Amino acid sequence: MRFANVNGRSALITDGGALDVEKASNGRFSSDPAKIFLAWEEFRQWAGAATGDPISFDIADLRSPSPEPTQIFAIGLNYLDHAMEAGVKEEPLTPAVFTKFRSCLSGPEPYLKLPSANVDWEVELVAVIGKPAHAVSIENGLDHVAGLAVGQDYSERLVQLEGAMPQFSFGKSFPGFGPIGPWLVSLDEFSNPNDLAISCTLNGETMQSSRTSKLIFSLPELINRLSHVCALQPGDIIFTGTPSGVGGARDPKIFLRPGDEIISRIEGIGEIRQICR
Amino acid sequence: MRFANVNGRSALITDGGALDVEKASNGRFSSDPAKIFLAWEEFRQWAGAATGDPISFDIADLRSPSPEPTQIFAIGLNYLDHAMEAGVKEEPLTPAVFTKFRSCLSGPEPYLKLPSANVDWEVELVAVIGKPAHAVSIENGLDHVAGLAVGQDYSERLVQLEGAMPQFSFGKSFPGFGPIGPWLVSLDEFSNPNDLAISCTLNGETMQSSRTSKLIFSLPELINRLSHVCALQPGDIIFTGTPSGVGGARDPKIFLRPGDEIISRIEGIGEIRQICR
Repeated sequence: MRFANVNGRSALITDGGALDVEKASNGRFSSDPAKIFLAWEEFRQWAGAATGDPISFDIADLRSPSPEPTQIFAIGLNYLDHAMEAGVKEEPLTPAVFTKFRSCLSGPEPYLKLPSANVDWEVELVAVIGKPAHAVSIENGLDHVAGLAVGQDYSERLVQLEGAMPQFSFGKSFPGFGPIGPWLVSLDEFSNPNDLAISCTLNGETMQSSRTSKLIFSLPELINRLSHVCALQPGDIIFTGTPSGVGGARDPKIFLRPGDEIISRIEGIGEIRQICR
Repeated sequence: MRFANVNGRSALITDGGALDVEKASNGRFSSDPAKIFLAWEEFRQWAGAATGDPISFDIADLRSPSPEPTQIFAIGLNYLDHAMEAGVKEEPLTPAVFTKFRSCLSGPEPYLKLPSANVDWEVELVAVIGKPAHAVSIENGLDHVAGLAVGQDYSERLVQLEGAMPQFSFGKSFPGFGPIGPWLVSLDEFSNPNDLAISCTLNGETMQSSRTSKLIFSLPELINRLSHVCALQPGDIIFTGTPSGVGGARDPKIFLRPGDEIISRIEGIGEIRQICR
């Protein structure tokens, strides 16, 4: 099942277009996408048999499938090849947790406004929480996930690396730096949600290409660790980390310029793309 | 004017007790404290002349004056004496920005449940945003502040310092690690909101004592810098940083134990206190 936020309304994506959730459910489920996660399991079961007249939509009509997360977790250095290109010498023993501040969150926006000449790309698997999670075991981790989306963890490298300590949260939170989408795919759609091809192209050239099975801390492990400190709430978002191939680790470095096109893809979900301005 | 969240309802604190905002305003202003910040200036003007019958309340009835911030900003190493005790060699040229995840936010809770034997104290001046702020000048920074509260940035030092990079956000986000209160004091109550005595006692002994005028990046400077990256929203919270005297920088180190009492005070606002469990 593919859940989307179409112009601020809850929708199911079908082959024929978008099915309005409130109308198709006769008001049983909310038109507000933020409220869907409060009863995700019930919604998912209903959605499996939902019928109605889908209407066509444009990709530009899509917003963040979870528009009002109380918390956005982001994980740094979570693929070994990326940790090493970032200068880390040994495999991390603990996930590096930061946030992307909510004001940077967006849907699969068609454009990215560059605030500087130091903006880099980081394709990431994104998970949205569908059930409260506190002190959850690894085995039960995925039970708390509503679904998966494609995300970009755009990063301003000068801001990120200046000062007395790394500014992961701040340098990665300019407006438009957290697009996710194009929709949320429920876990039952994947034969193995822990092993998906993930890639990023710049102007058609592959910059990043990996599999999510290479995550040092898998999604269920992240939910286990995060939930032992923070109470995860329905709608909360986790950016799981990026594989190697970012621009700032290249020689010479490559940063985004106006006109560049970034396409981020994950197997079984789809793609999001931004043209830089 | 002192604005409080009394058992989930908007209230004004007067000498006689708490005045229910919805009742005293005949429904003009919301009973939901989170909604008050959407029309803060209008509310503040009304509150100055509000009348009614205040009722008594207990400190345990108080919740976070801003219960649903979209963003919580926290600043590290923002007093030079604390930056130096933390091992920084030179005065930071840029504020170190992290978050305290929302699930750690609370009001002036009477108790703190210790998750480990490595929990430290950090008294901090906390500001709540009362007007959207994007790319605001230093001169206009305080125009976007609804008011000030006392905060504690409780920190689990092992989690904070483990791994490939400092875990400021994660190690400072256990449940109850972000109490603020006891209420929010509007800026017009201070002769100089940028120079307030700030202190923290452990079992009656002064551990931290400074003035907010010693902040390396003052509150208006923080709003200036934060708002050039993130769009600040009404209700957003800023923890401005702590002065020297934390337990982890002492020789020998001191961490909180069950039974310990932490009192955090700021001039012109009041105090919050937690007993550790």
